[in-house]
Amino acid sequence: MTEIAKGLEGVQFTESKLTFINGSEGILLHLGIPIQEWAENSTFEELSLALLDGKLPTATELATFDAHLRENREIPHQLIDVIKAMPRGINPMQALRTAVSYLGLLDPQSEDITPEARRAISIRMIAQFSTIIAAINRAQEGQEPVAPRMDLTHAGNFLYMLTGHEPTSEQARLFDIALVLHVDHAMNASTFTAIATSSTLSDMYSCITSAIGALKGPLHGGANEAVMDMLDEVGTPDRAVEYISGKMDRKEKIMGVGHRVYKNFDPRSRVLRDYAEHVANKEGKSNYYQILETIEKTVVDRLGDKGIYPNVDFYSGTVYSDLGIRKEFFTPIFALARISGWCASVIEYSEDNRLLRPSSVYTGEKDAHYVQIQDRQ
Amino acid sequence: MTEIAKGLEGVQFTESKLTFINGSEGILLHLGIPIQEWAENSTFEELSLALLDGKLPTATELATFDAHLRENREIPHQLIDVIKAMPRGINPMQALRTAVSYLGLLDPQSEDITPEARRAISIRMIAQFSTIIAAINRAQEGQEPVAPRMDLTHAGNFLYMLTGHEPTSEQARLFDIALVLHVDHAMNASTFTAIATSSTLSDMYSCITSAIGALKGPLHGGANEAVMDMLDEVGTPDRAVEYISGKMDRKEKIMGVGHRVYKNFDPRSRVLRDYAEHVANKEGKSNYYQILETIEKTVVDRLGDKGIYPNVDFYSGTVYSDLGIRKEFFTPIFALARISGWCASVIEYSEDNRLLRPSSVYTGEKDAHYVQIQDRQ
Repeated sequence: MTEIAKGLEGVQFTESKLTFINGSEGILLHLGIPIQEWAENSTFEELSLALLDGKLPTATELATFDAHLRENREIPHQLIDVIKAMPRGINPMQALRTAVSYLGLLDPQSEDITPEARRAISIRMIAQFSTIIAAINRAQEGQEPVAPRMDLTHAGNFLYMLTGHEPTSEQARLFDIALVLHVDHAMNASTFTAIATSSTLSDMYSCITSAIGALKGPLHGGANEAVMDMLDEVGTPDRAVEYISGKMDRKEKIMGVGHRVYKNFDPRSRVLRDYAEHVANKEGKSNYYQILETIEKTVVDRLGDKGIYPNVDFYSGTVYSDLGIRKEFFTPIFALARISGWCASVIEYSEDNRLLRPSSVYTGEKDAHYVQIQDRQ
Repeated sequence: MTEIAKGLEGVQFTESKLTFINGSEGILLHLGIPIQEWAENSTFEELSLALLDGKLPTATELATFDAHLRENREIPHQLIDVIKAMPRGINPMQALRTAVSYLGLLDPQSEDITPEARRAISIRMIAQFSTIIAAINRAQEGQEPVAPRMDLTHAGNFLYMLTGHEPTSEQARLFDIALVLHVDHAMNASTFTAIATSSTLSDMYSCITSAIGALKGPLHGGANEAVMDMLDEVGTPDRAVEYISGKMDRKEKIMGVGHRVYKNFDPRSRVLRDYAEHVANKEGKSNYYQILETIEKTVVDRLGDKGIYPNVDFYSGTVYSDLGIRKEFFTPIFALARISGWCASVIEYSEDNRLLRPSSVYTGEKDAHYVQIQDRQ
């Protein structure tokens, strides 16, 4: 009897020092440090560097890395032309996949798979993802791309390139926290696909192009987009209690509530919730935010003692919308954060590479023969 | 103690009815039919359709499929522009990855993942891969792409678009056999990467883009390119015996000899060898072919009784070179054949999809804390 590990669930195939998750206790650690501490104290830039190097950077190391990111914000003009020539109305993840693949064509170092080259390419990709995604958004809206600014943080510059307006420091920090919360999440499907590509000793651009393709699938990215569909369905804050109570009465699935991995609470959601509240109190509560607050209260009152709480997607959708990001771009924003986790995971796996070579069980015939076409039934 | 399935070796994760391999007995079956019978009787078109549908087609089904392939040979002019604008001297697999990703942007059906849509997209991709690869080759040589001809077979038309000259019927058939031999090979790394991407319910273009990225790695594609490097090193037929005997005396690895999977003989190599010999006898033996013959004889004389024989890469490199294909394009040619296996495998896996979700073993710290940057060592 052949045993089949469907979906490879429970199969451990490598070691990693990057991220630890304990779902039942609501624990997510990067390099042993709780995600809450990263979100409260750190930045996207620092966490990205820490994962690439496997340690908290010194002040000098971080300054150097940050300078490299800023220097690499511009993307080649040929790539801007390709992005502008893309048809309108496309899925932005298809555009991102294509743009990153094209970027590989323009990088003279792309074929170099030494650890040093992989690291250098990663830094450029982390920097350029931001410019590429913002440019795709602008081009799809029929607007000229906004050139990056070198005086803003990674998060602040992205919002600036996306909207053409400099965000407040609170908005930039809120978006930075959202990025920090999504940088890595252990062996997820897109990271695994990046590693599968890397395992043949392929180049970084191939690995990341594969990861984008996997993240694009609705079983992976896209949960916070579904939350926004729900908020749009609710429409106005006064309808929220009735809408959500009805859903709970009928025991229907509520998008953004509960989590496959985190059975008690999602450690990422509280941090994002608290800072989102801080910004909302200061800058005014949007319609979405008010609906969200009402749904949250209703859900926690009725399901909180069963360990069912809003997850990170519940808050991130509202946060992104209020920052001026269209919901079609939520999955690219996921990629904007996860690029650092992908790169760090590929580099870590490459240190002790093994070609991925699982098998399928053959269940077909074994002694058939070719039949000439005129003799077939 | 945690057990780690390194490289997922020996892990079975799904069922398949497409391809069976028994390496120790030198058996490769598609739909239960030996590869030798496919190569001798069938065509790339027929084997592709048989794998997509899981059965030998009727004459009408094959005629319809073949007509669809021919109708879809042309690629959108926007894609031709993108290919022509690519920088010179790039790795053609990067170009192919980018072009296929771009093709997805231009296909209004690309986001449809129903079985019918996946099949329709597969047929277009199988047809268009040929035109894309030929156009990349021409563009990289600074020449205008050659428009496809509708009166030629898939193999014949590809050689025509690549070189601008119509091949002889023997040449077209030789190339067709080479394609048949490479259509599928059970769960290899590129097929697996396509399935990993598909498992999130991502689209066909994402799956195939990922597969191209994985095939690009030297641990997967590229073996026949290494054979040609060896033939170039030998230079002239009179030097072949000395060169190869020296390698065997020093127990050095000989490219294209022996196989990881096929311990006795590679069932694909004999068919290709026999037809290559037929064509060479008829059209004259090239320098490469004469070197190959000498090496083959020397190797079989000394190692044949140990079960070490030339494998399919040994012959395919020479065959491709003699057909006017540059060795940089051998891996794209591999993709030209394998596209059918990739599509059939993704469609088969989608029928009973399960998100691929293996795990890594966390070996890092578990109780670290964030240290403010000024306090770090």
